[in-house]
Amino acid sequence: MSAARLDILTLGNAIVDVLARTEEDFLLAQSVHKGAMQLIDEARAESLYGAMGPAIVVSGGSAANTAVGAASLGASVGFVGKVRDDALGRLFAHDLNATGVRFDVPPATDGPATARSFILVTPDGERTMNTYLGACQTLGPADLREDTVRAAGIVYLEGYLWDPPAAKDAFRAAVRIAHEAGNKVALSLSDPFCVDRYRDEFRGLLRDGSLDILFANTHELKSLFQTADEETALAALRGEAVLGVVTRSAEGAAVVSRDGTVAVPAFPVETVADTTGAGDLFAAGFLAGLARGLPHETCARLGALAAAEVIGHLGARPQADLAAMARREGLLA
Amino acid sequence: MSAARLDILTLGNAIVDVLARTEEDFLLAQSVHKGAMQLIDEARAESLYGAMGPAIVVSGGSAANTAVGAASLGASVGFVGKVRDDALGRLFAHDLNATGVRFDVPPATDGPATARSFILVTPDGERTMNTYLGACQTLGPADLREDTVRAAGIVYLEGYLWDPPAAKDAFRAAVRIAHEAGNKVALSLSDPFCVDRYRDEFRGLLRDGSLDILFANTHELKSLFQTADEETALAALRGEAVLGVVTRSAEGAAVVSRDGTVAVPAFPVETVADTTGAGDLFAAGFLAGLARGLPHETCARLGALAAAEVIGHLGARPQADLAAMARREGLLA
Repeated sequence: MSAARLDILTLGNAIVDVLARTEEDFLLAQSVHKGAMQLIDEARAESLYGAMGPAIVVSGGSAANTAVGAASLGASVGFVGKVRDDALGRLFAHDLNATGVRFDVPPATDGPATARSFILVTPDGERTMNTYLGACQTLGPADLREDTVRAAGIVYLEGYLWDPPAAKDAFRAAVRIAHEAGNKVALSLSDPFCVDRYRDEFRGLLRDGSLDILFANTHELKSLFQTADEETALAALRGEAVLGVVTRSAEGAAVVSRDGTVAVPAFPVETVADTTGAGDLFAAGFLAGLARGLPHETCARLGALAAAEVIGHLGARPQADLAAMARREGLLA
Repeated sequence: MSAARLDILTLGNAIVDVLARTEEDFLLAQSVHKGAMQLIDEARAESLYGAMGPAIVVSGGSAANTAVGAASLGASVGFVGKVRDDALGRLFAHDLNATGVRFDVPPATDGPATARSFILVTPDGERTMNTYLGACQTLGPADLREDTVRAAGIVYLEGYLWDPPAAKDAFRAAVRIAHEAGNKVALSLSDPFCVDRYRDEFRGLLRDGSLDILFANTHELKSLFQTADEETALAALRGEAVLGVVTRSAEGAAVVSRDGTVAVPAFPVETVADTTGAGDLFAAGFLAGLARGLPHETCARLGALAAAEVIGHLGARPQADLAAMARREGLLA
């Protein structure tokens, strides 16, 4: 049996976001590191939820957000990740299927509940994430269908997959199958602290030819190359045999390769309501462009556009039709 | 035992909203009446959810939204309604408690699941609601603590409580206890089709002295008095022995009594993202003002302000600090 062709297959933690607006002093009181993602256990999840304000619940998960964004831009996309057969798991699956993302990994029928990330959004729009991995810890190579991976032009992996132990094996299997089929592999570094936890392994992936494309923001890139200087980090990235896509918040993004650097500005936004998903949606736009064979600059502009939409409202999933937005901007025909 | 004093106690269906943006033709395909609330059974809930787009999940319920809005404006508020002890029920309870609304009705431990309203938001910002009442059908007089009702200066009831059969008895008990304690009773007419279902009973409540305050929009008011003419409906309302608070969408609101009519304009909004909760939040602002003894015009302006905040984003619960907004507008000291 051969699977239908996919432009993009993303692999990541399947997470439902519980988002609440909060004041800065709540972060201090809860001893959380602003702007970062920290892992929490179930007891901490309960106590944090009890203390935080009224929330909205939206499907999330970095690579899943990217899948939805790319699908909203017209790409054919699949997602691999693990939920439990509970209310949040059904919500997560519904939101992927309803966007046209193929998601057919069976939910776990026992074990921990579907993962939740308690996301605290401060008045400046910055998000701070507290993630209970739950059912994500049961994702393994058995959840990966070889024909699906072979059928995908680009396999996109999130660095966060290094946190649940068995997911790493699924990650490595996906890399092997994709490359055997002659397809591309992309990695997002996810978070500077995640890079700090797995720096040697991520640098190993860069050097051993596992990766064709690397997505990172400047904080993650500096953490990867252990430098406080952005130019030093970019120079180090230029030395690697990958296409580097570096997001620089309000300063836009840079596409970095041995051939040179293409810089694009950020897409203008009126108010930054919530930065959750900005990086995920940038990757979505870039990959959707790449899948259509568009030039890197156009890919990066699609990324900037998708990121701008998602930071205009609470939640990491687009609320507007991204393809229609891209057509209005002349980025898609 | 006597309960702590409350400014406002609201009674209503305890509902979690599942909101999705949709195109007009989806409403046609699903045969739903745009702008209205229709009741659906569990099978229909499943099929509608399967067909609708990606959604955000936020606590809702008309009277619960009003409770949250009034609390956000500094009033002391309680809510009475029924959830199941499931994931959505916990979410609903969390969001009330996290806003400072007292909610201590024990969840049902068996029977139908927590109620959901599948809300379809069209590009014009109009919402169309499809509600599965679930656990709301088990709300009865036993869920009403007499001391809590006695302790509330205003008891606010939603017309939708006429749909689940036993809730009507809780409604009538609340009216009796409130009036015995010398407190005020308010009713929101909820929806023109709801008025159509229970017109005689609602008119009976107006005539038998059950109500001190009536909230309605013009559609509901015209349905109540069975006229197509707004002026005729307003004249009929002026003849009743209640304070009438009539919302008129973009045209603002009117406070109507035998003493005359006070009109206030709508509060300006940039874009109408989603009208879900507009009426609920208008009532919240009005009641919060009334609880402070403010003049009717100021109460109506507080209502207009709270309604303007909630229609600026997806979901029927305020995302901003309404009291801070009201202070900036000079409506609260």
